[in-house]
Amino acid sequence: MSDDEIFGGHEGGKLSVTATRPITQARDLSIAYTPGVAKVSRAIAEDAALAKRYTWADRLVAVVSDGTAVLGLGDIGPSASLPVMEGKSVLFKTFAGLDSIPLVLDTTDVDEIVETLVRLRPSFGAVNLEDVSAPRCFELEDKLKAALDCPVMHDDQHGTAIVVLAALRGANMVLDRAIADQRVVISGAGAAGVACTRILQAAGVGDVTVLDSKGIVHAGRAGLNPIKEQLAETTNTAGLRGGLAEALKGADVFIGLSSSTIDESLLATMAGDSIVFALSNPDPEVHPDVAARYASVVATGRSDFPNQINNVLAFPGVFKGALDSGARSITENMKLAAADAIASVAADKLAADHIVPSPLDPRVAPEVAAAVAKAAESDGVTG
Amino acid sequence: MSDDEIFGGHEGGKLSVTATRPITQARDLSIAYTPGVAKVSRAIAEDAALAKRYTWADRLVAVVSDGTAVLGLGDIGPSASLPVMEGKSVLFKTFAGLDSIPLVLDTTDVDEIVETLVRLRPSFGAVNLEDVSAPRCFELEDKLKAALDCPVMHDDQHGTAIVVLAALRGANMVLDRAIADQRVVISGAGAAGVACTRILQAAGVGDVTVLDSKGIVHAGRAGLNPIKEQLAETTNTAGLRGGLAEALKGADVFIGLSSSTIDESLLATMAGDSIVFALSNPDPEVHPDVAARYASVVATGRSDFPNQINNVLAFPGVFKGALDSGARSITENMKLAAADAIASVAADKLAADHIVPSPLDPRVAPEVAAAVAKAAESDGVTG
Repeated sequence: MSDDEIFGGHEGGKLSVTATRPITQARDLSIAYTPGVAKVSRAIAEDAALAKRYTWADRLVAVVSDGTAVLGLGDIGPSASLPVMEGKSVLFKTFAGLDSIPLVLDTTDVDEIVETLVRLRPSFGAVNLEDVSAPRCFELEDKLKAALDCPVMHDDQHGTAIVVLAALRGANMVLDRAIADQRVVISGAGAAGVACTRILQAAGVGDVTVLDSKGIVHAGRAGLNPIKEQLAETTNTAGLRGGLAEALKGADVFIGLSSSTIDESLLATMAGDSIVFALSNPDPEVHPDVAARYASVVATGRSDFPNQINNVLAFPGVFKGALDSGARSITENMKLAAADAIASVAADKLAADHIVPSPLDPRVAPEVAAAVAKAAESDGVTG
Repeated sequence: MSDDEIFGGHEGGKLSVTATRPITQARDLSIAYTPGVAKVSRAIAEDAALAKRYTWADRLVAVVSDGTAVLGLGDIGPSASLPVMEGKSVLFKTFAGLDSIPLVLDTTDVDEIVETLVRLRPSFGAVNLEDVSAPRCFELEDKLKAALDCPVMHDDQHGTAIVVLAALRGANMVLDRAIADQRVVISGAGAAGVACTRILQAAGVGDVTVLDSKGIVHAGRAGLNPIKEQLAETTNTAGLRGGLAEALKGADVFIGLSSSTIDESLLATMAGDSIVFALSNPDPEVHPDVAARYASVVATGRSDFPNQINNVLAFPGVFKGALDSGARSITENMKLAAADAIASVAADKLAADHIVPSPLDPRVAPEVAAAVAKAAESDGVTG
């Protein structure tokens, strides 16, 4: 792709708001606007539940960012984050037929962001948080979930976590191994690292070791923030100390979620038939061809190598399922169900170089949506 | 129109967000989303002006309401106002090709609304305020204009005022009268009444008398709010006291902008060749057939009678012109230019029953947009 193609593809922005029914005659105007619309507004005023049926709010996702952690670019601000949020809206529509609007905020104060979305609540039906820096993102998501009676998901956390779990299930099917028996090392204790740890634990992985820029996160390490303290309590059951060398020795799975690099000599110390997910974008922690010398299954975030682990496999279907089922929140079971659905779509031609479906596979979002809706219902969070 | 047709026309809401460029292959995904989008975001981070070119914000109108004065229904709240805001977005697209998003707010506090939109500023390029109750709407619009460096217009004020001025110009052309020589009576001192008074004065009408529910607004009347005190200072040059009977005697123009009714015996007391705009919706202050017994030109807000005075003649073109020209605000001259443009489109088949174009006339919005853009440039508020 040339720069001309990329910038040309963004000229004027990437979204358009259209009418679902055309206005071609006076009668159309009288239905969609005055005087007809007054009857619809009055009906909603008398029965608030009718807003679900006669407005778009209930099927609309707000794609919200403050621009503090945009892709690998960092804190570039709300305006510069907008092309990413527009792209997200394009993907919501393309893969799940969902309508969404980007809302980029000129404040990085967690409480102000919550307050803003609470005030806007009647305008949308769900919130996709995006590109918010850690550890603020954890507090923001928690507060938003408490303040809003609708699905809220920080995609950099849970979208990534869902697809990583799906990929790990795929890899384990290829290697005929049980997920519970793995020793997993996660490099990166930001949004994605924390959420991946949690979903893997929820899926039954007993032994996860997490590293941040200072090495292995362990109980008693000085200067841990509350999120990392919590991580330290539930991970690193072997009580390891040190860095990647200490963590990787004998490990079954490496999941790279930082912008660091990893030397191939360390991969050589992992257990046999190891799994390497080098997910840093645009540059993986290790080149997949190099990783393949040591690991039996390799995945990256890149579209030009096999096994692309991309959030787009998860978020369109997750929100579609949540909105379709009328879920008031997104539960752990809904995320686990999404991962299983992604893995099941890959299962029909499972191989070491096909542990997840292609991001363009049109079967994924409907399967994920159906599984998420079912989990929402069995969790009792709908209606 | 049956209720079934009306409610059927609102099922699921009336808007959809679509991609301006389809995603059909991996390459499209790489341009619209990662990794391509990172280049665009980085470029905007380095040069903020590029957001105008590579995002939709600069051509996006936020249609904002708190639901406190929805049509004739009053304070029915944000959710019940949403069908109206969606309708407005449909009209923006239909008549001016403009993208817009409804933002309905669950707060009626003026400062909180301003604060919310300031935080959302990077998300949009202009604000159409809608259905906010008076006198809060005046304070809200003033504060928003001061806080935001983009076009802001409360349509219930200025959209109505622009079309009323256009219609008065049309009626005066039919009657071959000068606008300055009129004695105008405006019934209603809410959003529309105040804005109509101001635009007519800006257009050269010297003698305007305004009435609210307590009668003629005049200097020294007890209990006037600041807006009405200001009105009292600049209107009612004859120093009238009393109600409609006193105001209408010998008047040339009656403009009804309240939900009241007017007895035909009062119309009989107006000057010869009088003009009656009975704009209350859905029930005009006087039936147009009755008004026609006394007045030479009659207009209403209804689509089933001639001379429909409808905001849709103004707002799509006004915002289109403002955004096209890069205007940072909407000036008095831009509104006057919009009124002239509307009148000029009607001029080709001017008659007592054709003083304004049809709301569906496709020539109107482009003419208004061109005139507004030109006025923005000569006022020096662009770029």
